[in-house]
Amino acid sequence: MALVVQKYGGTSVGSIERIRNVAQRVAETFDQGNDVVVIVSAMSGETNRLVALANDVCEFPSEREYDVLVATGEQVTIALLAMCLESMGYKAKSYLGSQIPVITDSAHAKARIQSIPDTKIRADLAEKRIVVCAGFQGVDEFGDITTLGRGGSDTSAVAIAAALKADVCEIYTDVDGVYTTDPRVVPAARKLDKISYEEMLEMASLGAKVLQIRSVEFAKKYNVVIHVRTSFDNRQGTLVMKEDAEMETVLVSGIAFNKDEAKISVLGVPDQPGIAAQIFSPLTEANITVDMIIQNVSSDGKTDLTFTVPKTDCKKVLQLIEPLAQKIGARGVSSDTAISKVSIIGVGMHSHAGVAGQMFSTLSREGINIEMISTSEIKISCVVNEKYTELAVRVLHEAFGLDRAE
Amino acid sequence: MALVVQKYGGTSVGSIERIRNVAQRVAETFDQGNDVVVIVSAMSGETNRLVALANDVCEFPSEREYDVLVATGEQVTIALLAMCLESMGYKAKSYLGSQIPVITDSAHAKARIQSIPDTKIRADLAEKRIVVCAGFQGVDEFGDITTLGRGGSDTSAVAIAAALKADVCEIYTDVDGVYTTDPRVVPAARKLDKISYEEMLEMASLGAKVLQIRSVEFAKKYNVVIHVRTSFDNRQGTLVMKEDAEMETVLVSGIAFNKDEAKISVLGVPDQPGIAAQIFSPLTEANITVDMIIQNVSSDGKTDLTFTVPKTDCKKVLQLIEPLAQKIGARGVSSDTAISKVSIIGVGMHSHAGVAGQMFSTLSREGINIEMISTSEIKISCVVNEKYTELAVRVLHEAFGLDRAE
Repeated sequence: MALVVQKYGGTSVGSIERIRNVAQRVAETFDQGNDVVVIVSAMSGETNRLVALANDVCEFPSEREYDVLVATGEQVTIALLAMCLESMGYKAKSYLGSQIPVITDSAHAKARIQSIPDTKIRADLAEKRIVVCAGFQGVDEFGDITTLGRGGSDTSAVAIAAALKADVCEIYTDVDGVYTTDPRVVPAARKLDKISYEEMLEMASLGAKVLQIRSVEFAKKYNVVIHVRTSFDNRQGTLVMKEDAEMETVLVSGIAFNKDEAKISVLGVPDQPGIAAQIFSPLTEANITVDMIIQNVSSDGKTDLTFTVPKTDCKKVLQLIEPLAQKIGARGVSSDTAISKVSIIGVGMHSHAGVAGQMFSTLSREGINIEMISTSEIKISCVVNEKYTELAVRVLHEAFGLDRAE
Repeated sequence: MALVVQKYGGTSVGSIERIRNVAQRVAETFDQGNDVVVIVSAMSGETNRLVALANDVCEFPSEREYDVLVATGEQVTIALLAMCLESMGYKAKSYLGSQIPVITDSAHAKARIQSIPDTKIRADLAEKRIVVCAGFQGVDEFGDITTLGRGGSDTSAVAIAAALKADVCEIYTDVDGVYTTDPRVVPAARKLDKISYEEMLEMASLGAKVLQIRSVEFAKKYNVVIHVRTSFDNRQGTLVMKEDAEMETVLVSGIAFNKDEAKISVLGVPDQPGIAAQIFSPLTEANITVDMIIQNVSSDGKTDLTFTVPKTDCKKVLQLIEPLAQKIGARGVSSDTAISKVSIIGVGMHSHAGVAGQMFSTLSREGINIEMISTSEIKISCVVNEKYTELAVRVLHEAFGLDRAE
C-alpha cells in the first residue's frame, strides 16, 4: 500500500483505445491497495493541432491566450480518463492545473511552479478516489492559465509527487527505461535498473531525451523517486533516485552525445585580464548559452580562446564576435559546425583515478582526435569531429564494460 | 458610446476565416467608441466532436467530467478570438466561465446561473480592453466546471449583459432576425423590427428556434434589450424588448407551429373530483411535460380527457395511462401522433375581441378541423391534423395581415 503518482505522455493517451489501456493500468494499481494520482498530457497530435490554429489566426499569438488555447489539450484527456475510470466502477475525479491549484509565476508558455497545496487531492484520496490531473498547466496569482512549456507534464508529475510526498512517481513513456546510451547507435546498450539524479541530469542535458531536465532537478530537490517505464508492458524500467553505495561501485553509467553544438575559436587574442569578459558579455546579453570554454596556454602574449554554442546560434555569434575580434586585435575568428560532444557519465568516477586516461586512450586507439575536453565530478566530455560520433560512442561503451552480456 | 454585449454562435466562429470576420466586427463596434464584451460559442462541429469522444470512451459519461470535456470547446474560441484582436492592435482578454466567474448551481450539463460578479470585467473595460467570454459554461460553489446545456451561450450573453447593465445584448445568429413565421413555410413572412419578451417566449417555446427560451426569460427578468441579427451583413435585425405602445396596436405579431406533440385521450372517464389528479400524477413523477389539457363537458357522468405530450414521450405515457384507465373504470385510451399545434401570438390580442373568432373561421373556410383549443392572454393555439400545418400557417399569416407588402 503506497501513494503512487503515474504520468502518461501523449503517446500513451493518443487514442480512445489507449486511454482505456491507461485506465486499466491505473485501476490495477488501485486494486493492489495503492492510492493513485494520475497526471496526463494532451493526446498526441492535439497540441500541434491547437498551435496550428493559433498560427492560422495570427502571426504572433498573445502568450496569455496561447496558454488558454493549448491548456484545452490536457483538459480533454483528464475528462476522458476520469469518465472511463468511473464507467469501470471506480470513483475518479479530474483536476485542471487551476483547480489543484498548481501555482506558477506568470511567465506564459514557460511558467515555473511555485507551490502546490495538497489539501483537495488528499481529501479525495482519503475517500478512495482516483485523482486525474492535467499536466503541463498551472495558474498564476491573477487566476490566469499558464503552461510550463513542452514536456512540462513530467515536471507537473514530479512536483505533484513532491507535494504529496508520494512513494514513487512513475513516468510512462514510449521507451522502457534509461539506457547506457542510445540503442540506435549501440545495439548492445543496456537498460539501467537505477541511475542517480546527477547522472540523469547529465544524460538529459547531453541529449538523452527521456525526461525533461526540470523534472529531474525537481525530483532531486525534493527527493522524489522517479520510475521511468513503458505503458505497453509490465516490465520494470529505470529508477532515478538518490545516489547509493551500489552506484558508487560503477565507474561509468552511460555514454551521452550531442551533435547540436558548434565550436568557435578567437585566434591570437592578446593575453590580458578582461579580454574574456569583453568577448562573452555580448553573448550573455544576446541570451546565448555558451557551453565549454577553453583557453590555451599563452605563447608570445597571444592565446586562442575556443568555446561551443548551440549550432542554431552560430551565425549570430559570428556576427557579434567578428567586429569585436578586430577591435581587441585578435588574429581572426574560426568556426566549425561539424563537431560532436561525447561524454562518459558516472557517479563512481569521482572516487576513481584513471577514467579520463582510459577515455583518451580508447579514442586515440581508433585515431579519433580530441579537439576539446571538459570535466566535472561525474562527467568527462570530449569534442570530436562529428563524423566520429557513433564510432566514439561504440568503443567507449565497450571499453567501460557497458555492453549487454549476450 | 454604449456598453455593447455581443454573442456569436458556433456558425459565426466556425472557421479561422470567420473568427477573423467576427474580430473585425467587434473592432468596428469598439472603434465607434463603445465598450465591448463578446460571448462566443464553440466552433461549429467542435461540441459534437467532443461528445463523440466521450461516447467512444464509455456508454454513460460522468456528468461532471462531461462538462470538463465540452467546456474546452468555448475555451478554444475565446483564445483564438482574443489573440486575433490583440494581433490587430487592440487590447483584449479572454475569460472562462470559471474566471469571470459565472456562478451556477451544480446541475451538470444543465446548470442554472446564480450570480455573475462584474468587478473583473468592469476593470478591464475601464482600461479599454475588449473582453471575450466563454459562453455556455460556469463554475459551481466547489470550483467544478458546469455547462448550461445546448444553446446556453445565449443565456450566458444575456446574463452577462444583465450583470453589466449593458445597453444592448446583440445575439448574432445564422438568421437575420425574428420572422412573423418560418419563411420556409410562408415565403412572404416578414422580419419583425421588434417583439416583446412575452411574444418571443411564446414564439420560442412553440418552435421558432432563434433564441434559447431561458435567455429570453432572463432578458425579461432583468429588462435586457436583445438585438437578434446576423453576422454576415450589417442589416438591423429584431429587437426583443419590453412591450411598448406601438406593439399594442398590432393584433397578431406572429404565427408559430409545433409538430413535436402527440394527443392522448382517456375516454369515458367517470366525472368525479380527484380523477384528473389520479391521471396526471404518474406523468409528473415520470417528468413528462403535459402541454394542453381539455376536458369535455360531462354527459351521463362520463367525460373524455384529452391532453398533449411530447411525441417522444407518447409510448411511455400510454404504458403509464392504460392500466390506470382500467383501474378508474374509463372506457379506453386513444392516441394520435399525427397532430400539429398552430398558434397566433400578439400582445395586442388581450385588448381586442374577435381575434379567436377570426382564427377559427379562417381555418374553417379551408376545411381544417380544430381538434383542441387553448388560449392565453397573448396566444391562441389550435391542434389540427398534422397534414394541414403549412396550409393553416399560410392562411392565418395572410388573414392577420402579416404578409410582406410586395
